[in-house]
Amino acid sequence: MRDMKKKEKEIYWHEPSVTVEDRWESNGYKSCLLWFTGLSGSGKSTIAHALDRRLHLLRVHSYVLDGDNVRHGLNKDLGLSPEDRKENIRRIGEVSRLFIDAGLIVLAAFISPYSEDRKRVRELLKKGQFLEVYVRCSIEECENRDPKGLYSKAKAGKIEGFTGIDAPYEEPVNPELILDTDRLSINECTESVLKYLDKKNYINL
Amino acid sequence: MRDMKKKEKEIYWHEPSVTVEDRWESNGYKSCLLWFTGLSGSGKSTIAHALDRRLHLLRVHSYVLDGDNVRHGLNKDLGLSPEDRKENIRRIGEVSRLFIDAGLIVLAAFISPYSEDRKRVRELLKKGQFLEVYVRCSIEECENRDPKGLYSKAKAGKIEGFTGIDAPYEEPVNPELILDTDRLSINECTESVLKYLDKKNYINL
Repeated sequence: MRDMKKKEKEIYWHEPSVTVEDRWESNGYKSCLLWFTGLSGSGKSTIAHALDRRLHLLRVHSYVLDGDNVRHGLNKDLGLSPEDRKENIRRIGEVSRLFIDAGLIVLAAFISPYSEDRKRVRELLKKGQFLEVYVRCSIEECENRDPKGLYSKAKAGKIEGFTGIDAPYEEPVNPELILDTDRLSINECTESVLKYLDKKNYINL
Repeated sequence: MRDMKKKEKEIYWHEPSVTVEDRWESNGYKSCLLWFTGLSGSGKSTIAHALDRRLHLLRVHSYVLDGDNVRHGLNKDLGLSPEDRKENIRRIGEVSRLFIDAGLIVLAAFISPYSEDRKRVRELLKKGQFLEVYVRCSIEECENRDPKGLYSKAKAGKIEGFTGIDAPYEEPVNPELILDTDRLSINECTESVLKYLDKKNYINL
């Protein structure tokens, strides 16, 4: 009995981990990172949250990472210097990698104006796990919406280094998807993403 | 028609987020953080991975955070200084908070020798979301197992500040669970945790 117990102990001691492929098979969908990039006010976070709700109703586990839950928590020690902005994106990429490994579809919504930073996140992940979604909207329309009043502040010189005003936004060169939010509704945008995920076999509609 | 479209757009613009309670209801279980603390070699990571597999088979979404996936990714910029160790635990706490919000049961396995650090993670979360699991094992047994050969290195003076050798381990005062791994098998330990989660209505066995 003593020996059997010992043997059992050793077997359990080597219990293998659950792989991401195990999770995909059990879930019936594949995890990935949808990276929503675009100007402030373009609709990134709104689309991400609308998608989260649609996926939730489809019983697909997803999660939104955006300024609201990252800047005040994990990255609250970071400021707005170039190095801190880079570290901000790096950590978001690493957290996304953990979520993907856990089997979730991550919806990350960040202005992320620099191609280099977005490329670095893409390189962190396996092929097919990073889907760049360019939430495209004219600066005029974004200024017009100005949901947080940031454009008027930036134009009044109260915010420095504001993307689109006195800091550049580098457009994605070859994104997986483009959503033109000055002519499409949020509903049309989310449908477009869902269809893409379905076509590429991440989910099954 | 133009107006209807506009109205629809605005409705979607205010689409609410999925709350953690929505996820719990849909999933049929509650998310939380099981924080496994104990000496090196006590069995924290092994128990966490065995539990991850058991939960996976029960179709409960869980995920292990341990040195393997955190130290080489998110926290690869951190060293072993007191401030860096503190920042290491802080970030793990913040990532756990995101995972809990996403509806997962997080299995975090870290020596985390200081009560203060563990307390800080507990305070970061809502009541009932932090479950401290003391993986208790005598230092003699841990040295005897020495799965990574770290104890012999530490005793030979090749590693400084090694917990249990020349750095303290502060035992949990009032942990939610204690697992005595020098007398229980890994299987018995995982069953004990599952029973606890069931009794406290996190999961339904």
